[in-house]
Amino acid sequence: MFELKEYTNFIESHLDEIDTPLEPRDLYDPIRYFLNIGGKRIRPILTLLGAELFGMKKEDVIPQALSVEVFHNFTLIHDDIMDEAPLRRNQPTVHEKWNTNVAVLSGDVMLIKAYQLLCKAPPEKLPEVLELFNNTAVEVCEGQQLDMDFESRNDVTISEYIEMIRLKTSVLLGAALNLGAIVAGASKEDKKHLYAFGQNIGIAFQIQDDILDLYADPEKFGKQVGGDVISNKKTVLQLTAIANSNKEQREILKQLHDEKNLEVKIQKTRELFDQVKAKADCQEMMQEYYSRAKNSIEKISVPEEMKQNLLQLGSYLMERDI
Amino acid sequence: MFELKEYTNFIESHLDEIDTPLEPRDLYDPIRYFLNIGGKRIRPILTLLGAELFGMKKEDVIPQALSVEVFHNFTLIHDDIMDEAPLRRNQPTVHEKWNTNVAVLSGDVMLIKAYQLLCKAPPEKLPEVLELFNNTAVEVCEGQQLDMDFESRNDVTISEYIEMIRLKTSVLLGAALNLGAIVAGASKEDKKHLYAFGQNIGIAFQIQDDILDLYADPEKFGKQVGGDVISNKKTVLQLTAIANSNKEQREILKQLHDEKNLEVKIQKTRELFDQVKAKADCQEMMQEYYSRAKNSIEKISVPEEMKQNLLQLGSYLMERDI
Repeated sequence: MFELKEYTNFIESHLDEIDTPLEPRDLYDPIRYFLNIGGKRIRPILTLLGAELFGMKKEDVIPQALSVEVFHNFTLIHDDIMDEAPLRRNQPTVHEKWNTNVAVLSGDVMLIKAYQLLCKAPPEKLPEVLELFNNTAVEVCEGQQLDMDFESRNDVTISEYIEMIRLKTSVLLGAALNLGAIVAGASKEDKKHLYAFGQNIGIAFQIQDDILDLYADPEKFGKQVGGDVISNKKTVLQLTAIANSNKEQREILKQLHDEKNLEVKIQKTRELFDQVKAKADCQEMMQEYYSRAKNSIEKISVPEEMKQNLLQLGSYLMERDI
Repeated sequence: MFELKEYTNFIESHLDEIDTPLEPRDLYDPIRYFLNIGGKRIRPILTLLGAELFGMKKEDVIPQALSVEVFHNFTLIHDDIMDEAPLRRNQPTVHEKWNTNVAVLSGDVMLIKAYQLLCKAPPEKLPEVLELFNNTAVEVCEGQQLDMDFESRNDVTISEYIEMIRLKTSVLLGAALNLGAIVAGASKEDKKHLYAFGQNIGIAFQIQDDILDLYADPEKFGKQVGGDVISNKKTVLQLTAIANSNKEQREILKQLHDEKNLEVKIQKTRELFDQVKAKADCQEMMQEYYSRAKNSIEKISVPEEMKQNLLQLGSYLMERDI
């Protein structure tokens, strides 16, 4: 039986292998702080599972797993600057706790640290590892840029949105898995399927995230339900609702955009989304990407029992209600 | 005879090999803009010279040279955010022309692009190339952090300042040279000497920069003479003046710190610096680092005629009066 907690603990027990000198303090304190405010460490766990899938011990891909975690946290620190986010995992963001300059520069050094960790891979694997990582890192930046571009656009389509979350979120899941698989010596075909699993589970996960933002159980959710509605964020739920609406319903959505009473805004938005079956359509879309993910795993040429941890992580990610 | 202009043109004619897609525009336009606002391209030229020194053609280290240039420009874009600089080479900085978010993210993607270019090195050289580049990139960030830290400190020593400019500026010159030398297959000893040349010439260059800021010929300088004095920047000139001053002179410097009449401020500061021989001491220090640089070149085990371009670049850098 796959125990997520066990893997999370494994990653956390190795975080101190990320070399962060004491000085200069304002460069390295934020890195230590941010790497220790928690999270489930899903991405580095994917690297461990990607290696184990092909018979390698998780102990043998620790630097690559940590590299993925450091890279991910670099993107969070810089995204938080751009989004002016005050909190991350209920803790002050780096630019809030220190300042923007500190957040820019400590983020920069984290990106370099991610490369340093990555380069601990066996030399003969290095070209492939780096090509994957470089391409992924560029895509993640492109996704973040698209996300910002979408804020000022009113004609974003659902497929553009899916492409944005593919770049911003999903390619890193595929890459995290493949970094483990590359070091473990997987075949080209198998790596292709594993990457497809990561991409599709990532997209499914993000669609679910958008759904939960409005439909989660407030008692379990741990943050404001309807946050995306309040901030008029273009989510897949919102874009689906618009696509499914008639002229009259679109007018209502337009009015709700500026509704000052937030309780009313959330309540009425949910009613309209239900009318136009936005939630049901998004759930269907989510299931479609989840199915694709599972199909990709089936095609990987290792015994079924080797795939169980990965499938269980997938079902854990998809069946959460918070 | 070494023709700097010829090498600058060579680098500029290859800038279009840096892959920057058209979209997303706000991610890639700033990169194209910034890479094309000029500069002498000293750092990538060092990579070419580092390769030529050991008998390799400059055509064979173009990606590594471009990598250094892209990395350097990434640091400039992010430094300009931190310093709130409105202009760079008389053109608006990226955060001014676009905004801070654009400057953060397009800087990030440039750092990744630098790695992409670097990875075009022959696979067997990759581990060494990356180790050098990673360590250098971390040091450059540390140097920038120290520079910011110094702004709020009143007890910065000359040796701390030299260490800061070593990290912020000089290590990249050493690394740029060595990237060429590594690809060209230089020996460990020769790389050590070449790196020392880069470091020492970098420190000498920066000391000279500090001197010229106050003592350059205004007609040739192209920017405000005394800019560092006006902004109360801690330069090696300033730190040397303080170290050389008696109690009374220190009191005058303290008063000049807040002098509102800028012409008076520059004039009186220059008078006091002359009294305490700050300029002469700094010039001596500069010459000392320049001598060390030349000594390091002497120790490199290639025929004298192979060293001429590098020595001439060194003397060009040190004998400029603007």
